[in-house]
Amino acid sequence: MTYCLAIQVDDGLVFASDSRTNAGVDNVNTYPKMHTFEVSGDRVFVVLSSGNLATTQGVLRHLRQEMEAPDRRSGLRTAVDMEEAAGYLGTLSRKVQKQTPDSGSAMEATFVLGGQIRGDDPEIYLVYPEGNYIGPSPDSPFFQIGEIKYGKPILDRIVTRKTGLEDCARCALVSIDSTMKSNLTVGPPVDLLIYRRDALAIDAGEKLQYTTEDAFFTGMRTQWAEGLRTAFNMLPRFPWEPPSS
Amino acid sequence: MTYCLAIQVDDGLVFASDSRTNAGVDNVNTYPKMHTFEVSGDRVFVVLSSGNLATTQGVLRHLRQEMEAPDRRSGLRTAVDMEEAAGYLGTLSRKVQKQTPDSGSAMEATFVLGGQIRGDDPEIYLVYPEGNYIGPSPDSPFFQIGEIKYGKPILDRIVTRKTGLEDCARCALVSIDSTMKSNLTVGPPVDLLIYRRDALAIDAGEKLQYTTEDAFFTGMRTQWAEGLRTAFNMLPRFPWEPPSS
Repeated sequence: MTYCLAIQVDDGLVFASDSRTNAGVDNVNTYPKMHTFEVSGDRVFVVLSSGNLATTQGVLRHLRQEMEAPDRRSGLRTAVDMEEAAGYLGTLSRKVQKQTPDSGSAMEATFVLGGQIRGDDPEIYLVYPEGNYIGPSPDSPFFQIGEIKYGKPILDRIVTRKTGLEDCARCALVSIDSTMKSNLTVGPPVDLLIYRRDALAIDAGEKLQYTTEDAFFTGMRTQWAEGLRTAFNMLPRFPWEPPSS
Repeated sequence: MTYCLAIQVDDGLVFASDSRTNAGVDNVNTYPKMHTFEVSGDRVFVVLSSGNLATTQGVLRHLRQEMEAPDRRSGLRTAVDMEEAAGYLGTLSRKVQKQTPDSGSAMEATFVLGGQIRGDDPEIYLVYPEGNYIGPSPDSPFFQIGEIKYGKPILDRIVTRKTGLEDCARCALVSIDSTMKSNLTVGPPVDLLIYRRDALAIDAGEKLQYTTEDAFFTGMRTQWAEGLRTAFNMLPRFPWEPPSS
């Protein structure tokens, strides 16, 4: 399983993903699910992937080859806006899936594409296995793929378009932490990327990876567990209970 | 959709359920999903239901008729322990499902059966559509049915066998609140029942129903939202951020 999420706010974009891949419970591996492509100063793309690993790797190989070929006339390198890039990714995904005929839905993959092209706003798109795609709504400015439900409540409560990038990043880490606690097939290391509007480059300082030994991530998880416990202990008491001491 | 949960701790049992039933998004109704049966002083049963409404209503009608017939030689009234009662409920569920032949999985229903029979401990069982059943594990002393994922993280964090009944009840309300916020097909009123070990009767004072207008439930939801926000604001700051003010 997988859990990835992307958040689009006024200040920019935040991406987070786990690294666990499994085919059944006895074939568990670690693969990054966050992939970045950039033409510094002109365009930045972040791709989050979920689903069949052969499909996602095939799609990413294509994208990488294209980005490395400056004379390409299509693909991410030449897309005029993020929406065109999302459509391109969808078409590519369909093409790769069809290379394994008669596979039904087994080859399906879902992507989130986020980034910014110079002159446009930073944007995120959810690209379905069918190749079509959607943008986020103003009220729910995020996308999740994979094992999405455990980590959704905190996003629903915290994230709006006005939320700052660091708060979005904290919320993403908490969302992934909740998911890891409830589903064994979502696991570390956790990748986190903060993209500031108009940077048009991936700032290495804000592309982070956290293992379970990482002090900052451990501190975040511990603090969140304690904060939840405190919040729980502050809840109103039933009418028949004595007042809390 | 539906969300029900049952918790089994040393002090007794806690049950909670929402009341929304939908066949598609344009056919939404309110049905209670928590049903109680008792022979006061001898045995108490609570049934939570999820799945096909015709199946669950058929099963509950059977159970009610049997409980009202003191000369019955089988069913909940004569089960020697909770496990036998769970097996009986499973068999009954299969029988009702098969009254609609060739329906595939459309008639399936899942139940949680909890309660206590005099001389035994209070117990909960999860009864699958196939008619078989399981008891809870010492480490995860709860069962959820229906839309289970949104509300699971808080249960994972709070509930152990030693947790008090009122804390379990608060945790159940928070779990349902989180689910209602993230899934429109889970909705109020919320039923809550606290069963104290060896009571062998349903205490009317601890069988509660909360609408969204209820002051206690509203207070609980508001306090939880504020507590989460406080917990969130206390999270560690990234190394490049200024200290929190």
